[in-house]
Amino acid sequence: MEKLKVVFHINENEKWPVVLSNVKNLIKDMGEENIIIKVIANGVAVSCYMPEPDNQRVIRNVEELSAIGVVFIACRNSLMGNRIDEKTLSDTIEIVPAGVTELVKRQSEGYAYIKP
Amino acid sequence: MEKLKVVFHINENEKWPVVLSNVKNLIKDMGEENIIIKVIANGVAVSCYMPEPDNQRVIRNVEELSAIGVVFIACRNSLMGNRIDEKTLSDTIEIVPAGVTELVKRQSEGYAYIKP
Amino acid sequence: MEKLKVVFHINENEKWPVVLSNVKNLIKDMGEENIIIKVIANGVAVSCYMPEPDNQRVIRNVEELSAIGVVFIACRNSLMGNRIDEKTLSDTIEIVPAGVTELVKRQSEGYAYIKP
Repeated sequence: MEKLKVVFHINENEKWPVVLSNVKNLIKDMGEENIIIKVIANGVAVSCYMPEPDNQRVIRNVEELSAIGVVFIACRNSLMGNRIDEKTLSDTIEIVPAGVTELVKRQSEGYAYIKP
Repeated sequence: MEKLKVVFHINENEKWPVVLSNVKNLIKDMGEENIIIKVIANGVAVSCYMPEPDNQRVIRNVEELSAIGVVFIACRNSLMGNRIDEKTLSDTIEIVPAGVTELVKRQSEGYAYIKP
Repeated sequence: MEKLKVVFHINENEKWPVVLSNVKNLIKDMGEENIIIKVIANGVAVSCYMPEPDNQRVIRNVEELSAIGVVFIACRNSLMGNRIDEKTLSDTIEIVPAGVTELVKRQSEGYAYIKP
């Protein structure tokens, strides 16, 4: 059976806890081998990727979930708009030119869309 | 013609009025025989399914819309997270192990996604 | 190659700046000739289509983006619910009986869905 696929869209920082919880519940329920998950952050939500003390919980989760195959993505437009130097971000975070393009292309490939 | 299909996703209690209004408008516009509608509640939004005085308006709508075929779904993870005993909920509400899995699977079957 | 297609859904006025910014970033990234974009407003968000001083920025953007092919849509149910006379709106804005129906039908035709 073909794996199911999903993009989670986050554009507000206060949604990080629910996005991360949703991703974990999905993996727990389906098994990490049965689902392809991408988390696409744009707007101000990209700022939680910055290696700063306030973001420790998000960053630890990003590292742990990346290790089992979840792909975390940042929108370059949003990084620039929030004056974040992409070189400061962890290598595990994928940078794309535009988060919205990514959301459109993935859905055209059969990914489901969830906006927590 | 194959029926159109849609999942409404709700994860915040204050969104219940707009979700219910959207569902009614969709049925009024398309005809209940032409559309399959599922409402998937996760996060704190499952608490409006509890048979309590404050939830009367939601529950009455859930009963009326269920009677014409709309399926209302609660995420078990969210029920447990909000310490809600699923045995207290109306039988018309379908319980699924994880709301996010339901959102992914339905979209993979061709359901549209709407987050009011 | 078939053009990619996307509907942006907006139902809150304060989301207009981010929706318009997302649309511009998508066009800048993909090229206006490679993407079909519809912006579907329902709920209170239709009120920003009204030709009033406070809405100047939204309206100017709607005109400019319409000129390069973006389609802006208003839900008639929502116009009536917000006591807005549709005859006062610019001709560039398309009126549909129900925004939710439009969201379902377009997704059934392969449009991606983005809720900023």
